[in-house]
Amino acid sequence: MAPLSVIGANPLRDPADRRLPRIAGPSGLVIFGVTGDLSRKKLMPAVYDLANRGLLPPGFSLVGFARRDWENEDFAQVVHDAVKEHSRTPFREEVWQQLLQGMRFVQGTFDDDDAFERLRETIEELDKAQGTGGNFAFYLSVPPKSFPVVIKQLKKHGLAEQKPGSWRRAVIEKPFGHDLKSAEELNKVVHEVFAPEQVFRIDHYLGKETVQNILALRFANQMFEPIWNRSYVDHVQITMAEDIGIGGRAGYYDGIGAARDVVQNHLLQLLALTAMEEPASFDADALAAEKTKVLGAVRLPSDLGKYTVRGQYAAGWQGGEKVIGYLEEEGIDKQSKTDTYAAIKLEIDNRRWAGVPFYLRTGKRLGRRVTEIAVVFQRAPHSPFDTSATEELGQNAIVIRVQPDEGVTVRFGSKVPGTSMEIRDVSMDFAYGESFTESSPEAYERLILDVLLGDSNLFPRTEEVELSWKILDPIEEYWDKHGRPAQYASGTWGPAEADEMLARDGRSWRRP
Amino acid sequence: MAPLSVIGANPLRDPADRRLPRIAGPSGLVIFGVTGDLSRKKLMPAVYDLANRGLLPPGFSLVGFARRDWENEDFAQVVHDAVKEHSRTPFREEVWQQLLQGMRFVQGTFDDDDAFERLRETIEELDKAQGTGGNFAFYLSVPPKSFPVVIKQLKKHGLAEQKPGSWRRAVIEKPFGHDLKSAEELNKVVHEVFAPEQVFRIDHYLGKETVQNILALRFANQMFEPIWNRSYVDHVQITMAEDIGIGGRAGYYDGIGAARDVVQNHLLQLLALTAMEEPASFDADALAAEKTKVLGAVRLPSDLGKYTVRGQYAAGWQGGEKVIGYLEEEGIDKQSKTDTYAAIKLEIDNRRWAGVPFYLRTGKRLGRRVTEIAVVFQRAPHSPFDTSATEELGQNAIVIRVQPDEGVTVRFGSKVPGTSMEIRDVSMDFAYGESFTESSPEAYERLILDVLLGDSNLFPRTEEVELSWKILDPIEEYWDKHGRPAQYASGTWGPAEADEMLARDGRSWRRP
Repeated sequence: MAPLSVIGANPLRDPADRRLPRIAGPSGLVIFGVTGDLSRKKLMPAVYDLANRGLLPPGFSLVGFARRDWENEDFAQVVHDAVKEHSRTPFREEVWQQLLQGMRFVQGTFDDDDAFERLRETIEELDKAQGTGGNFAFYLSVPPKSFPVVIKQLKKHGLAEQKPGSWRRAVIEKPFGHDLKSAEELNKVVHEVFAPEQVFRIDHYLGKETVQNILALRFANQMFEPIWNRSYVDHVQITMAEDIGIGGRAGYYDGIGAARDVVQNHLLQLLALTAMEEPASFDADALAAEKTKVLGAVRLPSDLGKYTVRGQYAAGWQGGEKVIGYLEEEGIDKQSKTDTYAAIKLEIDNRRWAGVPFYLRTGKRLGRRVTEIAVVFQRAPHSPFDTSATEELGQNAIVIRVQPDEGVTVRFGSKVPGTSMEIRDVSMDFAYGESFTESSPEAYERLILDVLLGDSNLFPRTEEVELSWKILDPIEEYWDKHGRPAQYASGTWGPAEADEMLARDGRSWRRP
Repeated sequence: MAPLSVIGANPLRDPADRRLPRIAGPSGLVIFGVTGDLSRKKLMPAVYDLANRGLLPPGFSLVGFARRDWENEDFAQVVHDAVKEHSRTPFREEVWQQLLQGMRFVQGTFDDDDAFERLRETIEELDKAQGTGGNFAFYLSVPPKSFPVVIKQLKKHGLAEQKPGSWRRAVIEKPFGHDLKSAEELNKVVHEVFAPEQVFRIDHYLGKETVQNILALRFANQMFEPIWNRSYVDHVQITMAEDIGIGGRAGYYDGIGAARDVVQNHLLQLLALTAMEEPASFDADALAAEKTKVLGAVRLPSDLGKYTVRGQYAAGWQGGEKVIGYLEEEGIDKQSKTDTYAAIKLEIDNRRWAGVPFYLRTGKRLGRRVTEIAVVFQRAPHSPFDTSATEELGQNAIVIRVQPDEGVTVRFGSKVPGTSMEIRDVSMDFAYGESFTESSPEAYERLILDVLLGDSNLFPRTEEVELSWKILDPIEEYWDKHGRPAQYASGTWGPAEADEMLARDGRSWRRP
């Protein structure tokens, strides 16, 4: 066994961390909304997995805050069950026992001053008992309308205050507002209490290995960057397709829709990573500077009617089962104009990308669950081959497969075996699963560890959030004034209008 | 069944030929040296496979010429056995029966005028009986010293003469001389009898699918050509490694050696295809022009002692068996200085490649049998990553796997799963076997069909042969005057000197 200076250091420990161990110092995590789905399925298991991988300090503490009438033991039991059910790494009793030492529950509502006082006392008690050194992150896994009250309570009860040599951080889950104005208001509330470097906005896509690999792929290699520009790229397609419907999220989803829920954050962040210039380094400031620059250069199509499409899933067949349409879902207004599908053409006004369209699309109840970035290249400027020999040759493409089946695919033309020079598309694959024995940490493991380490590389900043709303607001306003979402049958790849949008440009969507 | 207008047209027929059937017109093939290994293992099976794929005309005729005291029936039996043993496609009796109609044997030695008269009569008889229309190719599968006499006999007996509307062609197997002078002499003899367009020099490597795919890869795609130059390529390695020794070929091999046997033809042809500019079209003239141009731009290293290496295999272990050294092989002079391994550094003096070394190597009794072209890229000009994060990152490479395991590998850096930004080499593969249901024709199928079609794309021309000797001659002269080949243990990757040669340039050989 490893020395007890870290929880659970053991052979499961990430080999990637061997040379540069990134182990959190003395600290604790307070979760607001600890009874919610996100907490149970993602946050609690991630904390355990980090502990099991030896990346948490020995006195690490986990505090739950919620309205439920629970004792510490009840909370511990909930965490225990969540860990057993959802953790990535095997359950080990000794890791659990050590985690248990720092586990506390604080009962209360968000407007309950006494509860926040008890939270303050709990933290002070943990500092003494567990040696957390005053270092606490507050994870707001709560509905957006509760953000302001929690933030204000943290301030009021001195919880946001960083004593010398210690830190306090706030972790905020999306949505970061629902338009530019509300985002600015939210940012104002947050930044009245926390300095910019204390705030960590979670876009869990940025925690995914494949998303971080965009940067490795582009900038650690010599062979991709020379062709990563308007001289060779025809267009880029960024797709996040879900096969599920809204499930039980009617209350959250209706009135928000696909564009706000996915395009504004995930897809525009993927666009930024795909299109940005090489940063001077990978420190958070340099990275944010490049992302901000490229998001600031994004230009909307002049004709929003032709180059944006929204859709709503109708009834259809999915995975061999008949499913209902969005307007028939429980809790959804029959007149709802909420988009469950959005496709948008954007351009980037800079030297590298001028004239290269970026087509973004997302939707629920599509053909299958897949997220990918496809960089599609122009055809060769001249083909010395017979036209008939290249009939089955498409355009070269580099596809970053974000999920599932993480990896990279390159599509190119190759000679078909035989006595004539016929050329056909083939592809080569790199699959994470086959190439690495290391299994990929969950996005939340990476992101929670980064919060505890104060490493803000993978967290979008205020400017990025606001620039993304600036891109989306005119589209939402246009949609608001013009018609209704197009219906598309569940299990298909979205409304016909989205295909027409690309056909108008002489292109077509990939069928991923 | 297909119509009887072609032999054996059937479902085995190459799908690649569906749209552009390349079926030979009325014709026959005369093989000199028909009792040899090449004829039995490659030529006869290739003829059958072509017939079976429906690519030969119905009256196709095959004439064997040799000293053996055989009747037509004996020859047919030999062909039958060779086909049964070595053909790529299944044996079908009806195809065999049709081939049999045009099978003849002519007994005689190369200086026997009567035999050549009988050959002339046989051809005339076949023209009548089989409708071959006077179109015959003469395949000289004979030792180099017999080339002149056969060529002269063909002329003397009017066999090289093309009657109006018919053709005669000569197919010559390597070696095309053993230096520039002898090559020029051979070419003179050949071209006194045959016009340049009547002569087909076989370099069977050019018949391989993967070699032809070099052109498809480079010129049918948009993503490779932009980085295929000195701005991005660090160097190129072309390897043809054999695991076998000289076997029974002592008489041919000793005094010739690896450089003459492999570098002069196969490796320099691979270099030409890898390095040449895009031809205006894929007709034979345009292709030859580009190959000639790039071979003419090849420059030898100024210090031949440092940048060429020759070796001789010593005893060692291969495939779990103890094997003897070259000097112990039967029929080899104990003082022989013949190279069984050669490694040479070349540069190409043109705008695209100036300063990019091409390292060529070939050898017998090496680690394993493999032929590949590796285009190795420079490191990225700047890495925004921590140095420690890229310790296990090598150089990007595109590897064209010529044989075995035909395909393409791309090596690049990818993020290692884990919470730090560590980058490691991974690779992606395209494998012929997995991507195409079509199985690859043997090189000799393609090349014999091309001879019958008069398509000379894949045959090196006089100028290419002579330019290749111009490159090799100074090296052979230097070796002749300086020392002996370095010994290397069988089953290893060649002499230490070859590793030192690359180490001197700060590089190392791939271990394929």
